[in-house]
Amino acid sequence: MRETDNRPLILVTNDDGIDAKGFRELIRIAEEFGEVVAISAQIPMSGMSHAITIKVPLRVKLLEERNGFKKYLTTGTPVDGVKLAFHSLLGRRPDLLLSGINHGSNSSSSILYSGTMGAAMEGAVNHVPSIGFSLLDYRVDADFEASAGIAREVIRMVLEKGLPDGICLNVNIPSVPASELRGIQFCHQANGYWKEEFEKRTDPNGHDYYWLTGFFHNREPRGGGLGTDEWALANHYVSVVPIQTDMTAYPFLEKMKEWEKSGMKHGS
Amino acid sequence: MRETDNRPLILVTNDDGIDAKGFRELIRIAEEFGEVVAISAQIPMSGMSHAITIKVPLRVKLLEERNGFKKYLTTGTPVDGVKLAFHSLLGRRPDLLLSGINHGSNSSSSILYSGTMGAAMEGAVNHVPSIGFSLLDYRVDADFEASAGIAREVIRMVLEKGLPDGICLNVNIPSVPASELRGIQFCHQANGYWKEEFEKRTDPNGHDYYWLTGFFHNREPRGGGLGTDEWALANHYVSVVPIQTDMTAYPFLEKMKEWEKSGMKHGS
Repeated sequence: MRETDNRPLILVTNDDGIDAKGFRELIRIAEEFGEVVAISAQIPMSGMSHAITIKVPLRVKLLEERNGFKKYLTTGTPVDGVKLAFHSLLGRRPDLLLSGINHGSNSSSSILYSGTMGAAMEGAVNHVPSIGFSLLDYRVDADFEASAGIAREVIRMVLEKGLPDGICLNVNIPSVPASELRGIQFCHQANGYWKEEFEKRTDPNGHDYYWLTGFFHNREPRGGGLGTDEWALANHYVSVVPIQTDMTAYPFLEKMKEWEKSGMKHGS
Repeated sequence: MRETDNRPLILVTNDDGIDAKGFRELIRIAEEFGEVVAISAQIPMSGMSHAITIKVPLRVKLLEERNGFKKYLTTGTPVDGVKLAFHSLLGRRPDLLLSGINHGSNSSSSILYSGTMGAAMEGAVNHVPSIGFSLLDYRVDADFEASAGIAREVIRMVLEKGLPDGICLNVNIPSVPASELRGIQFCHQANGYWKEEFEKRTDPNGHDYYWLTGFFHNREPRGGGLGTDEWALANHYVSVVPIQTDMTAYPFLEKMKEWEKSGMKHGS
C-alpha cells in the first residue's frame, strides 16, 4: 500500500484557467493536506455559473503527473471538469473539492454567475465536501499570501467537521495584508445585484454590438448589516457563507398555500 | 396614449432557441395578457444555467415588430438576453418575465443547470415577478396544449398576487393529455442529482473525447414523498416550486456558530 492511500484525495478546480496564479496557489495548499487531482480549462470560464456542455464532446489531457499529483486540462466548463473528474478521472470518491482561488469577489448574488461556485455546488450535489475560495482582487498577479493562511484554516475545519450533504462553503477574502485581516465571519448572502450598463458600440462594418459592464449594487441598508458577507468584507473580515443546492424558498412555500383559498386549483 | 400603455409589459425568453415550438407557444399565451417583448438565441442554450458572456461582445437584432409585440435575436445566453432587455431594449421595467416553455424537465436539481431557470432567476434578482415553465417532453414537436392552460392559470395568479423580491417560480408540467392532469401542487425541490456516465470515444485522428450522458437519480425515499416536485410529476400533477436567489443555508449557518467553540477564529 502506498503512503498516499491513507491521505485525503482532493479535487482542485477553478474558473480562471489552468495558468491562473490563484489556481497554482490552491494546488500548493491542497498538497499539504493530501493527494491532489487538479483540472481546469485553458481559457478563463468566469461567468460560466453552473453551465454544462451538451452539444459538443469534451476533451481532456493529462498535463502533469508525479507522486500524489495529477493535473488535467479540459475543454469543458468548471462544472464539466468536476463531472469528468468524479466519473472518469478519479479512481475513487474525493474527500474534498476545492475551487479557486478566484481572482475577484464572489460575494452576495455574484454567486449566481460564478464558475468557481458552480464547481463547488456540483461537488455538494454529489455529496463531496466542497469549498469555493475568492480573493477580492481581479489582478493577474494578485497577492495570495493572506488567502493561503485562511484557506488552510477553512480546509482543516471542513476535513475535521465535514459538511452536510448538498451544502458547500463560499469563502471570500478581502484584499488586505494578512496583518489587517480581522478574522473569519460566518455570514448570509447580502441582498444585492449587478446593475448592468451595456456599452453600445458600432463595429467597422457599421453593425451595433454590446459590451456587458456594470457595478455591484448592495440593497442592504447601510451597506449591509452585521451578518451579511458584504459587511464582513467591507470591515476586513473573511466571509464564509454556507450555500445550499436545494433552492426551494421554504418560508414562501408556506405562504403559497394561501393561494389555494383564492381559487387556484391545487392537487388534493 | 396608446391602448397598450395600460397593459402589462411581459418579457418572454427561453433556452431552446428562437425557433423552438415551446417559445412560440409561450409568446402566444403572453400576448393574451399584455404587451410582449421576446428575446432568444439562434442556437439552443440548454445547460447554460446562469452563465453570462464577459469576454466577447453581444449582438442583438430586431426580427419582428408589430403593435404590442417585438421579437429580438441575440448571440448571448438566456441570462445575457434578460440583462440586455432590462437595460437596453425595454423602455420600462417589465411587469412579468416568462421563460420557456422548455422542451424537457427542469425539476429537482436540474434547476442548477437550466438556462430556462437561469433567466427566471435573473428576473427575480432584478425584482421582476418571473416564472419558468418546462414540459416533460424533449421532442421538437412536443404537444403544448395542456401546458397552455396551466401557464394561463399560473400567470393570472402571479399577475394578481405578485411574488416576493428575489423569488421566482419553477413550473414543471407532466407530459400527459390535459384530461389526465390532476391539478397543481406547490412543492419543494426533490433531493436528486444527475448520475453521469461519460461515453469515451476516439476520433478519426486517434484522440479521445467524451460525451456527457446520464440519468437523473432521485435520492428521495420511495421516489420522493408527498410535497416534492418529483412525486407531483410522477403522479400527474403540475409542480410549482418557489425558488430563492438567496442561496444561504440558514439552518446550517446556525450550526456553524458551534465551530467557533472548537477553535476556529471568528470575527467578534
